[in-house]
Amino acid sequence: MSDTFLAEAARLLGPKGLTTDPADMAAWLTDWRGRYTGRACAIASPADTEEVAALVRLCDRHSVPIVPQGGNSGMSGGATPFEHGGEIILSLRRMNRIRGLDPAGRTVTCEAGVILQVLHEAAEKADLRFPLTLGGKGSATIGGLVSTNAGGTQVLRHGSMRALVLGLEAVMADGSVLDLLTPLKKDNRGFDLKQVLIGSEGTLGIVTAATLKLVPQIAGRTVMWAGTPSLHDARSLLLLAEDLAPGLVEGFEVLPQHSLEAVLDYLPDARAPLAESHPWHALIELVAADETTAARLPEIAEHLLATAFERGLINDATIAASEDQAERLWLIRETISPAERAIGPAMQHDISVPVEKMPAFVEAAVPRLEVDWPGTRAVCFGHLGDGNVHFHVIAPAGRERAEWEAGEGKAISAQVHDMVTAWGGSISAEHGIGRLKRDDLARLADPAMLATMRAIKQALDPKGLLNPGKLV
Amino acid sequence: MSDTFLAEAARLLGPKGLTTDPADMAAWLTDWRGRYTGRACAIASPADTEEVAALVRLCDRHSVPIVPQGGNSGMSGGATPFEHGGEIILSLRRMNRIRGLDPAGRTVTCEAGVILQVLHEAAEKADLRFPLTLGGKGSATIGGLVSTNAGGTQVLRHGSMRALVLGLEAVMADGSVLDLLTPLKKDNRGFDLKQVLIGSEGTLGIVTAATLKLVPQIAGRTVMWAGTPSLHDARSLLLLAEDLAPGLVEGFEVLPQHSLEAVLDYLPDARAPLAESHPWHALIELVAADETTAARLPEIAEHLLATAFERGLINDATIAASEDQAERLWLIRETISPAERAIGPAMQHDISVPVEKMPAFVEAAVPRLEVDWPGTRAVCFGHLGDGNVHFHVIAPAGRERAEWEAGEGKAISAQVHDMVTAWGGSISAEHGIGRLKRDDLARLADPAMLATMRAIKQALDPKGLLNPGKLV
Repeated sequence: MSDTFLAEAARLLGPKGLTTDPADMAAWLTDWRGRYTGRACAIASPADTEEVAALVRLCDRHSVPIVPQGGNSGMSGGATPFEHGGEIILSLRRMNRIRGLDPAGRTVTCEAGVILQVLHEAAEKADLRFPLTLGGKGSATIGGLVSTNAGGTQVLRHGSMRALVLGLEAVMADGSVLDLLTPLKKDNRGFDLKQVLIGSEGTLGIVTAATLKLVPQIAGRTVMWAGTPSLHDARSLLLLAEDLAPGLVEGFEVLPQHSLEAVLDYLPDARAPLAESHPWHALIELVAADETTAARLPEIAEHLLATAFERGLINDATIAASEDQAERLWLIRETISPAERAIGPAMQHDISVPVEKMPAFVEAAVPRLEVDWPGTRAVCFGHLGDGNVHFHVIAPAGRERAEWEAGEGKAISAQVHDMVTAWGGSISAEHGIGRLKRDDLARLADPAMLATMRAIKQALDPKGLLNPGKLV
Repeated sequence: MSDTFLAEAARLLGPKGLTTDPADMAAWLTDWRGRYTGRACAIASPADTEEVAALVRLCDRHSVPIVPQGGNSGMSGGATPFEHGGEIILSLRRMNRIRGLDPAGRTVTCEAGVILQVLHEAAEKADLRFPLTLGGKGSATIGGLVSTNAGGTQVLRHGSMRALVLGLEAVMADGSVLDLLTPLKKDNRGFDLKQVLIGSEGTLGIVTAATLKLVPQIAGRTVMWAGTPSLHDARSLLLLAEDLAPGLVEGFEVLPQHSLEAVLDYLPDARAPLAESHPWHALIELVAADETTAARLPEIAEHLLATAFERGLINDATIAASEDQAERLWLIRETISPAERAIGPAMQHDISVPVEKMPAFVEAAVPRLEVDWPGTRAVCFGHLGDGNVHFHVIAPAGRERAEWEAGEGKAISAQVHDMVTAWGGSISAEHGIGRLKRDDLARLADPAMLATMRAIKQALDPKGLLNPGKLV
């Protein structure tokens, strides 16, 4: 790292655009979950795409590696610099303009630094909705969400970022600007470069802006809760819901009796939605964009539950009679993580297998782990419709957290990832690879897949200056 | 081309797997539209993925360029060898097994040589549907459809191949097999290599199999026809339909009065759907997968048309009262191409612009061309919902076809492509680039886009043996 480089960067970006002050930098050197703390020679905060491009060209000339960063709320350490301190953090947070919102076309073009919550509010003002949300919405930026192909609770109906990005602008490793912002529903002019960049975690190019899809506001919703004999039946219930309420199923979450009980213990005011206990529970939300369909949702929900009951897919069910009741049902789902954590140390896994195999996978993996690791309890809950569950393995009672996690916990995680791979699944359904799972990916991924990824990385970033040491 | 190579290939593939017989080869040396006729040293027809991989390794050793070919029904010459004769055609047609159909998971895994129609029939037997269809369904293969990201008439609701491919198997330039067949709804393990290969026209790898999405069979449909004052109103009508019939709009096609009259002149038995003439017409199809919703479709259609009428979006409309009437409405739409062709020579363009700009584009481009080229008539019809229209420019009366096409017609096409590019659109919405539009792409594409595509091509096919001279 030469002083020339920093001086040139300062001249390029101006006083607002570059800091080397340790106090200003501290918050951005540690990742969201506190797993990694690195160092950086500076934080650059360009004001626009041209400044990003100029900075990238400067870094190229001086061979300075770049760590792109948005809200710093990633789960896998992908936006945190390494400990050696030779990297520069390229923060996109100053680029926070909404360049345009087209209500008729239902699209919005945002710079990379726009915060998700801000986008939600802008869409709402236009009587529209951006249908992706997640816990970190107050800090997560559009650039980070695109670069990590973020998911959330509405993926079942609307897809992850990959499905919501209509256009993209990115600065490539040589400082050229790839302008793919214009949204075209049909375009067969060669390779889909948008899709190459989405989810590439800043290793192939720096996303500076995106054109995103908006959808109509919700005119009404109906939330229901069903007790079901097995995860297989829950899966059949989901297929039935998609048939009987096509285009209306916004959420479909599952949890075992164990998780429900954990929540009931944890939340003093919570009540069980159903009178009796059931092996599995499903939380289903139907939504409609227009008043006419919204008025019919309760009727559609009743027909769905009656049909499911006739077919033996559910044993009992209830439909929320008010928004308040609906909120209470969702609160149970959203409290599972803290409730399970309150029980004691647990290894958490963000996995997916083919949707139709999820019931069989859970039935095979849960007892296998509980037998192999006596005293543990394996719990799965989450987005059955996406084939993506949170797979928690809770430590035997009385174990010390740090020691258990570093020892047995680590071996358990390796076994979970081995099992997922054997079932053709993914060791990272939502949270990406970053630094956290890079070695696991190298260990478990298909060699041809790894070789192809590495060849693309080498082609688009020959000097290896874009987020090195992450992902590939 | 050495005799050693052909001898080794023959040994590798057996008598069924290789031919150099001119009579056997003739049909596969000319493209579907008869624009190009090339030569090839042989046609290889491997029986399975391993044979494809072995052949690719052999070609790599002998530096023999490969032209992958499915049903040879592409529109842009992408599967036709060049005139020099040094290439080998790699036909995937022998690999025509459906490896598995999972009715519960609603997926099917096909080898590349499975013909689209055969897949339709297999899905139907399982009471499901593969929701992509096009004119060449009796010859087009799954491998070709994936490699060209094919579209068709159901893209509005179900997307093009890109949206229907859940998994992919491909042989890469070094003969390694990239196995991405397992369908995962959520997977954030790095770059989406599936999406890199889809639409790459055999220039990055050879698609040998794909796992595809199936959808429920249709329980019923309602087809309607509306006369609308302008293309802007037709666009508003589409947005209204998507709001009032969410998830049910299967087709939305537009045509001008001129095209309707051309069809009425051409088809002796056809009758105008509406009593009066209108500047534009919209053909709308709603479909439902379940009986309950299907029974409500006429009511939904009436509500949609009444609302559109109140808002001044349409002046008149009719709902097909029977399947026979529905077929007659679709027949009008499907007869536009031959009816327009019967009028005389025309330059046809496969273009898209952002959906919301399509009305303004047509209003600007049509008079511009008719003024610049006196006596011509520009006609647009097709998939308004996809921002993709067939843009035909009909020659002035009395012109000789070949002479007009080679002279004025060529200049008109260049002007159409320039205008589309200026509007941020695509010169190839559906049919791909192949050999036909390679030079136009090089002339009009963003330099950063071209450079990125070329870098990826160079990385994944360093010797340039996969379908050279096509696309990039």
